[in-house]
Amino acid sequence: MRVDIVTCQPELLTSPFGVSIVKRAQDKGLAEIHVHDLRQFAINKHGQIDDYVFGGGAGMVLRVEPIAACLDGLLAQRSYDAVIYMTPDGETLRQPLVNRFSLAQNLLILCGHYKGIDERIRKAYITHEISVGDYVLSGGELGAAILTDAVVRLLPGVLGNEESALSDSFQDNLLAPPIYTRPAEWRGEKVPDILLSGNTPQIEIWRHDQALERTRQRRPDLLGE
Amino acid sequence: MRVDIVTCQPELLTSPFGVSIVKRAQDKGLAEIHVHDLRQFAINKHGQIDDYVFGGGAGMVLRVEPIAACLDGLLAQRSYDAVIYMTPDGETLRQPLVNRFSLAQNLLILCGHYKGIDERIRKAYITHEISVGDYVLSGGELGAAILTDAVVRLLPGVLGNEESALSDSFQDNLLAPPIYTRPAEWRGEKVPDILLSGNTPQIEIWRHDQALERTRQRRPDLLGE
Repeated sequence: MRVDIVTCQPELLTSPFGVSIVKRAQDKGLAEIHVHDLRQFAINKHGQIDDYVFGGGAGMVLRVEPIAACLDGLLAQRSYDAVIYMTPDGETLRQPLVNRFSLAQNLLILCGHYKGIDERIRKAYITHEISVGDYVLSGGELGAAILTDAVVRLLPGVLGNEESALSDSFQDNLLAPPIYTRPAEWRGEKVPDILLSGNTPQIEIWRHDQALERTRQRRPDLLGE
Repeated sequence: MRVDIVTCQPELLTSPFGVSIVKRAQDKGLAEIHVHDLRQFAINKHGQIDDYVFGGGAGMVLRVEPIAACLDGLLAQRSYDAVIYMTPDGETLRQPLVNRFSLAQNLLILCGHYKGIDERIRKAYITHEISVGDYVLSGGELGAAILTDAVVRLLPGVLGNEESALSDSFQDNLLAPPIYTRPAEWRGEKVPDILLSGNTPQIEIWRHDQALERTRQRRPDLLGE
């Protein structure tokens, strides 16, 4: 998979893509991530890429020309399965959408910053508007990092053990059950006996019951209740 | 505000906190962000902080001792308004919760990684379990970065213009209206006349109507419809 990210703050994305799973995926040749700096497409020698909002009000808006120049260049080189704009008024990202994006060959992600981008870019280029949640961030970069991390970890061969992703929260509409590791007793708190029993079928039943109970308590909406 | 973040991947957080709004807030002395490396609290000289999951299954679990040692040290130094664990089965982060956290003096955020943390830590220390969305990431670090960014940008004096945050999506249960900047015409697409009229009261009415219409189309749930 190839992911192109267009941003006016490329340096914000250095470390999220330079360590952990996303780095491993790149090292293994399973994912290519390219971050493009909008300032390279500035409208003048002062590096201008934004301007005041028409009609008045606080905050700056990213202008059309730098974004269009950058996207035109990328779109001329390959076709993208999705041209995504990270925005709080987009479709809320959930695991099924992550799963779908993980099947793509090429993803193009545009990050807003400041007050956002000129509406005409959204109409002209964007195929998917995505929000990572109902909160406002200073830019789309962290959203792009989240989408990339969530998608890349699903690519076959990225995680050490495929099973690890299948048992995640949300993959079966259940939250994950409690997990424990050594020591078996810590400050008087013991690991549930069943987990030390070696009885794998019973452990699986216990885990399913715990997952169901936790989901009922915390997220009954996932169960359609 | 002081934010302490406990993680086994501190390097992942370098650039999100080293640029943009969060850096500016730190430079202005409005926020202090401290990232703590769990590996400094490893249980042995090999740097071990995780272990196999009791009961079998894929994925590693962060052990209790390194986390407890790190948290005990921090809790001995000051009191925290919240001890937060970033986890997909936590309460979903939304703007009202961000607003509440922005009133805190001290926040402590624990990031899971691998399969998660031992359940006993959650029971012993955590006051708030928070999810940034219904998707699974390779760790809690990006969630912690999101929570920090969302909270810090609300601190008085961080944004250039306070009004900028008040007119964000979600602050009034409405998505933001479309925004435009120069040029007034681009590839035949013109900015709506009203925004060039200079008639501020009419512009405000137009924006409210657009925000309402966009919210109705995209997120009727925000309107309680």
